[in-house]
Amino acid sequence: MTELKVTAEPGVPQVFTERTFDAPRELVFRAFIEPDLLVRWLGPRQYTMTIDRFDARDGGSYRYVHSDDAGNAFGFHGVFHGAPSPDGFVQTFEFEGAPGHVSMDTLTLEERDGKTTVRTNSLFQSVEARDAMVQSGMAEGMNDGYDRLEELLATLVATR
Amino acid sequence: MTELKVTAEPGVPQVFTERTFDAPRELVFRAFIEPDLLVRWLGPRQYTMTIDRFDARDGGSYRYVHSDDAGNAFGFHGVFHGAPSPDGFVQTFEFEGAPGHVSMDTLTLEERDGKTTVRTNSLFQSVEARDAMVQSGMAEGMNDGYDRLEELLATLVATR
Repeated sequence: MTELKVTAEPGVPQVFTERTFDAPRELVFRAFIEPDLLVRWLGPRQYTMTIDRFDARDGGSYRYVHSDDAGNAFGFHGVFHGAPSPDGFVQTFEFEGAPGHVSMDTLTLEERDGKTTVRTNSLFQSVEARDAMVQSGMAEGMNDGYDRLEELLATLVATR
Repeated sequence: MTELKVTAEPGVPQVFTERTFDAPRELVFRAFIEPDLLVRWLGPRQYTMTIDRFDARDGGSYRYVHSDDAGNAFGFHGVFHGAPSPDGFVQTFEFEGAPGHVSMDTLTLEERDGKTTVRTNSLFQSVEARDAMVQSGMAEGMNDGYDRLEELLATLVATR
């Protein structure tokens, strides 16, 4: 299992992450844009993900909710800029618990020797908003989701 | 006439601009989201603007082209995150002459004593992309467009 690498320079409203998965790019891409695969890994393990809409095309919008057994529910939504492709995609992102704070994520997928490196470049409207997101446990939540993605990819690779 | 104030800190992939117009916020907002008004001011004076699509709603997309008498044409497109309102809006932005480089603009409109201050916060995927945009004459083009906006607003105020 690899670890999530997170880069968040002081004073810059941006976060980079990187993690490598033992699966071809085409499968990793499917796990990011097919709703029935996405709900099986995105977000921390204790949440159930429900997709309201997920229209992975240029100008398409998405909204999903993470909920737990205690009755907490957290909504997220945004739009896609450009058509998602195996090279990656660009989307906006807003956590509905902090309305009005919008970020933009660029995700790229690079395959080498059968493994795929997923890189994200997230831009925030201010350093304060970036710091709040990092301090809210962004990396831990992402890494937890990525552990689940690794498990899902292993299943998909095994059943091809 | 006021001047455009531009802030672009070294090493940060972000540009802030600010300019105040002698018109109420509701009119300035209309000039930003009504296509027949937008074509009358957006961009440098030597270009003719043609709107392909301009769907100012949550998840709506836009595309426009600036062309000149010499046959040059420059396309731009993006999507709106959230519904535009007189408070402002968030949109992605891609210059088709540099495909794959996407930025996100947050525009806010604040009215005080009948004047409206327009502020933009533009985020770029890298400092290099930000610097390239600034060096391409972003501020000059914006200021030229804003001079035309000032003239348009004066007409709209006079004919209300």
